[in-house]
Amino acid sequence: MLRVAIIGSSGYTGGELARLLCNHPEVSITAATSRQYDGKPLSEVYPHLRKRVDIICRNHSVEEIAALSDFVFCAVPHKTAMDIVPQLIEAGKKVVDLSADFRLQDISVYEKWYQKHNAPELVGMAAYGLPELYREKIRNARLVANPGCYVTAITLALAPLLQNGCIDISSIIADAKSGTSGAGRGAAVATLFCEVTDGFRAYKVGGNHRHIPEIEQNLSLVAGKPVTISFTPHLLPVSRGILSTIYADLIGDVDEAKLHRLYHEMYDDEFFMRILDHEQQPATQYVRGSNYCDIGLKIDSRTRRVVVTSAIDNIVKGASGQAVQNMNLMCGFAEETGLAQAPLFP
Amino acid sequence: MLRVAIIGSSGYTGGELARLLCNHPEVSITAATSRQYDGKPLSEVYPHLRKRVDIICRNHSVEEIAALSDFVFCAVPHKTAMDIVPQLIEAGKKVVDLSADFRLQDISVYEKWYQKHNAPELVGMAAYGLPELYREKIRNARLVANPGCYVTAITLALAPLLQNGCIDISSIIADAKSGTSGAGRGAAVATLFCEVTDGFRAYKVGGNHRHIPEIEQNLSLVAGKPVTISFTPHLLPVSRGILSTIYADLIGDVDEAKLHRLYHEMYDDEFFMRILDHEQQPATQYVRGSNYCDIGLKIDSRTRRVVVTSAIDNIVKGASGQAVQNMNLMCGFAEETGLAQAPLFP
Amino acid sequence: MLRVAIIGSSGYTGGELARLLCNHPEVSITAATSRQYDGKPLSEVYPHLRKRVDIICRNHSVEEIAALSDFVFCAVPHKTAMDIVPQLIEAGKKVVDLSADFRLQDISVYEKWYQKHNAPELVGMAAYGLPELYREKIRNARLVANPGCYVTAITLALAPLLQNGCIDISSIIADAKSGTSGAGRGAAVATLFCEVTDGFRAYKVGGNHRHIPEIEQNLSLVAGKPVTISFTPHLLPVSRGILSTIYADLIGDVDEAKLHRLYHEMYDDEFFMRILDHEQQPATQYVRGSNYCDIGLKIDSRTRRVVVTSAIDNIVKGASGQAVQNMNLMCGFAEETGLAQAPLFP
Amino acid sequence: MLRVAIIGSSGYTGGELARLLCNHPEVSITAATSRQYDGKPLSEVYPHLRKRVDIICRNHSVEEIAALSDFVFCAVPHKTAMDIVPQLIEAGKKVVDLSADFRLQDISVYEKWYQKHNAPELVGMAAYGLPELYREKIRNARLVANPGCYVTAITLALAPLLQNGCIDISSIIADAKSGTSGAGRGAAVATLFCEVTDGFRAYKVGGNHRHIPEIEQNLSLVAGKPVTISFTPHLLPVSRGILSTIYADLIGDVDEAKLHRLYHEMYDDEFFMRILDHEQQPATQYVRGSNYCDIGLKIDSRTRRVVVTSAIDNIVKGASGQAVQNMNLMCGFAEETGLAQAPLFP
Repeated sequence: MLRVAIIGSSGYTGGELARLLCNHPEVSITAATSRQYDGKPLSEVYPHLRKRVDIICRNHSVEEIAALSDFVFCAVPHKTAMDIVPQLIEAGKKVVDLSADFRLQDISVYEKWYQKHNAPELVGMAAYGLPELYREKIRNARLVANPGCYVTAITLALAPLLQNGCIDISSIIADAKSGTSGAGRGAAVATLFCEVTDGFRAYKVGGNHRHIPEIEQNLSLVAGKPVTISFTPHLLPVSRGILSTIYADLIGDVDEAKLHRLYHEMYDDEFFMRILDHEQQPATQYVRGSNYCDIGLKIDSRTRRVVVTSAIDNIVKGASGQAVQNMNLMCGFAEETGLAQAPLFP
Repeated sequence: MLRVAIIGSSGYTGGELARLLCNHPEVSITAATSRQYDGKPLSEVYPHLRKRVDIICRNHSVEEIAALSDFVFCAVPHKTAMDIVPQLIEAGKKVVDLSADFRLQDISVYEKWYQKHNAPELVGMAAYGLPELYREKIRNARLVANPGCYVTAITLALAPLLQNGCIDISSIIADAKSGTSGAGRGAAVATLFCEVTDGFRAYKVGGNHRHIPEIEQNLSLVAGKPVTISFTPHLLPVSRGILSTIYADLIGDVDEAKLHRLYHEMYDDEFFMRILDHEQQPATQYVRGSNYCDIGLKIDSRTRRVVVTSAIDNIVKGASGQAVQNMNLMCGFAEETGLAQAPLFP
Repeated sequence: MLRVAIIGSSGYTGGELARLLCNHPEVSITAATSRQYDGKPLSEVYPHLRKRVDIICRNHSVEEIAALSDFVFCAVPHKTAMDIVPQLIEAGKKVVDLSADFRLQDISVYEKWYQKHNAPELVGMAAYGLPELYREKIRNARLVANPGCYVTAITLALAPLLQNGCIDISSIIADAKSGTSGAGRGAAVATLFCEVTDGFRAYKVGGNHRHIPEIEQNLSLVAGKPVTISFTPHLLPVSRGILSTIYADLIGDVDEAKLHRLYHEMYDDEFFMRILDHEQQPATQYVRGSNYCDIGLKIDSRTRRVVVTSAIDNIVKGASGQAVQNMNLMCGFAEETGLAQAPLFP
Repeated sequence: MLRVAIIGSSGYTGGELARLLCNHPEVSITAATSRQYDGKPLSEVYPHLRKRVDIICRNHSVEEIAALSDFVFCAVPHKTAMDIVPQLIEAGKKVVDLSADFRLQDISVYEKWYQKHNAPELVGMAAYGLPELYREKIRNARLVANPGCYVTAITLALAPLLQNGCIDISSIIADAKSGTSGAGRGAAVATLFCEVTDGFRAYKVGGNHRHIPEIEQNLSLVAGKPVTISFTPHLLPVSRGILSTIYADLIGDVDEAKLHRLYHEMYDDEFFMRILDHEQQPATQYVRGSNYCDIGLKIDSRTRRVVVTSAIDNIVKGASGQAVQNMNLMCGFAEETGLAQAPLFP
């Protein structure tokens, strides 16, 4: 059994890692850190895990974590992550980091959107953890930078179009809507039940969300040239789920059938990708609790734009599920191990 | 007291008309029709109206409605409306029709998106019921075509930009999200609680929603030339509210301050328009139950696009509230009579 | 115009007072206090109030409040209230206090469930603000203790039975369910959207909720002898609303028709009470945003128990609406002034 | 591989059986019937099952079902079930029936609450499918009557108290609250999103719900004498989950510690039972999607009543999960096979 540590186990992505790993046949959770809940069973912090997870949260030092585990999920905020990860790598641990700290290859871009980087030497060795695009790199990596939730949904939705030169790369608009778990489990007025329920709003409008440089890094890599996008996130009154509606001007004389073929070519062998038929549309409730990414595709013939819609569960495929998928690759397990559950509906 | 009839009182817009009119000091509801609930008090169909509304639903003939009322709200589906409205107009009644039947000035466009038109002669005499744009016409009209809910939100959001030539009219993308009351009160699997709650999806993707020609008619009129848009509606797990996120390429060297000035110039005297400061964004929960339209405005300097967001309550400003606003104009009452309640939050 | 102050304007009950008072024809809000939002417009704290309320929040001293207003709503937590109210009364202001500080006539009971009382001399002069039971006292009061939300729902539901000796007073069980706004607007993990939505739980089970002594004080007064009850509160995934399901053993040979008569006798002249027919049941969505209390009544003939169900909006009839109703009585306005809006559904 | 049929696969319990069985290592779904969706893939009826379930819905005859399967889940409404099950039993199939048709041992009671019984001879041979109470009978049964959802929650909550004579059996009051999936997937106004969301109500108040005789049959068997209860169901604005709050007068001098011991004695070896500590309370969101039953226990010392709270997922432990648990027993698989997933939170 692989001994696994979760650093930051009391956040939503930490709790979700525990939920997924407790049914994973190849691993055992041997450490779960939490400053706030030091000494408390994780199943008191997350009562849904009673009888499934019996680890006690501890405020472990990095040395203790290294001693207790072979593999580490780092589920703490950016900045905190880059203070911890270098020691773990040095100690020979394999690490999946769920923060933004090792995702942006250009340190100056990172420092513009976040803050000074403490461990730039690790950025180069980190594989970007989107298995559908970078599977081989991930297999051989010791450090994986797990992608952002919005970034995953949008990159997977656009990759076939960009790879095949079907769209004008200056025309991309991604209108994305996320469930509230994306805001984390910190106490805050803005995410109280009464503030969110029965409501809807946009936030960080006008190109101000930190996922933008990460999305553009991905899209530019796939397209082979610099891509700039418009991106607007919104807050949905649901716990889980991201739906992205993406618009782009078509180049040349493509039709819907051809586009569908491109998506099927790229994704048909992927366990977690589901390309929908012409008349179907993804919905967040159909991927809830699962690692699937559902994609719908329509051409608006009046405006010659393609409209791609993609749905994921933001804390599974958008965070903890993808992290486990990466672990499976890094450790030689079958990629879907522990992740093959069907979504929960209704 | 103006004697008012509601045709189709058992739908959500019918019930909302009753809610708004029961507090209106100048009117009295003297007829409420319903085929399904003939003989039942409207306050049994809508128990929230107990002790506020005491009318009995009847399956009245058009003649009976004409005898019982001076003013008629027609809140039945398109097609049914155009079978009823001509008789009412002939009988000398003033009518606000909430269906699509008299909104599209070009009969061939109507017939392409809906079906054959039975009363084309009335289309020319109908005023389009968006008071912020067509107040004087409405004042003098005997028949008002009440706008669609999405259409209201998008037209009001774009009018200042189009009127002042600030945007490339071929670049408009409107990504709109509506509460489920927009789907009506008919029994249907797709709008059951368990199908909608904790979920989100797009529908009629690719330029297939019937509000498109109506939006384009409005925008073209304001712009003075034909406008074509991309429009995608989505279904929110909320009862009430539409939020539209609208993208367009800026023309020339405008900045956010200038755009804000244009919106304030156009809307500052409007009772129901609220233009938000630069750092604020509208949210459906802040207009819930009210006739307000809130508008936010940001420039994405990286892509030189403007992002306009607008929020309304789809069954108030998007339907019944706007219908009452139109009635107020048609009857010489102060425009906000019966509509000045603050929104309900939380 | 009566000059009105709201102390504690940034909580949900404070915001609701502002919503109700901004449409009240006899009053003007002349002070709104908030420590946290000192200097901010209340309409930034509560954006739904834009263009309806233009007061700026201030961290006023009690002296300033007294100078600025004739009538004061005190919407701060217990303990804080009894530090403020005495000065206001001394300054000749009329006060409705929404906290628990002046509700319990027996100081020792207060001190057992809360803490030491600083102003016991005021308790005797405070009228208990349930107009349906104590209208005359309220009319003449300078200080009104506004009832708790659960207390209002349960007292109104049981009063006719107790007054007429229909039930065994040792058998009462009140199972109550409240919307999350009852927990206030403070940042807390337990009331985050993701913790509450799509879920349900009981809390303070086993007779531990502080509303119990207040409920029992009310019921004992009506019954004319000491009443002890079982009470369990629950947290609903809704913003507003309390539904109470109350069970009691019937005494003697009463039938449903007779019980209905008793409720109609007691409540038919009450503007805000709605007694439902035998086959109808109240629902929180039918009182949303209104000051109504809806009551349903059934006898379970198999067990000879009566089941009374009552629904209110916890921040209207359960707090701010009832406070305004009390102000109307204390100031000689018609009791329903500013409170006659129909509930908002859906 | 056991060949399994689902009769009535398009209802919520049918879809949930498919979700659970598609991850069950010992079975294969070989037939899924639906009149309405004949010819459609089940994964179109339930898009969350795409790529997990590839069966096509068919309007099979009973003969065809018998030919295609070894084991049958009958997930159709009562009455329809008793028209089908006898043939399947005769054909040698093992059957779990999720309807009420074989649950009530006293045919006259069944006929009083439902309608005439067509297959009374099968009632005697049916095992009642509550494994925690009747495991051995179920192991040997060819027909299992799967319990009602409310019934499961209440029976498991009360069994230890009744078995040990701790409570006055005439004093039991069960106040239960269910998610909306319990109402099924049929199109109906009453369960539309807008009618249910942000609301709460009781229904079938006064002892009128058909689960009452089934609850009383269970409780009487455990107590060894006839038990009559008060039971009120409520409709929660959540998809999944039942929380029951149960009150009973204590007999004799028991304390909370003793009661906890009784629950632990009875349930500690049960995979799916979780008894909570004194200061914890169950919540529906902590059992969501799982087969767990969580139980909390408090004594109200002021009234000498015990308050037991229990939470289950109504379509897992309350229906399809328990059905799979029964299948596991009937077929000699480990009882938790396919059911060991952790609940989904948030």
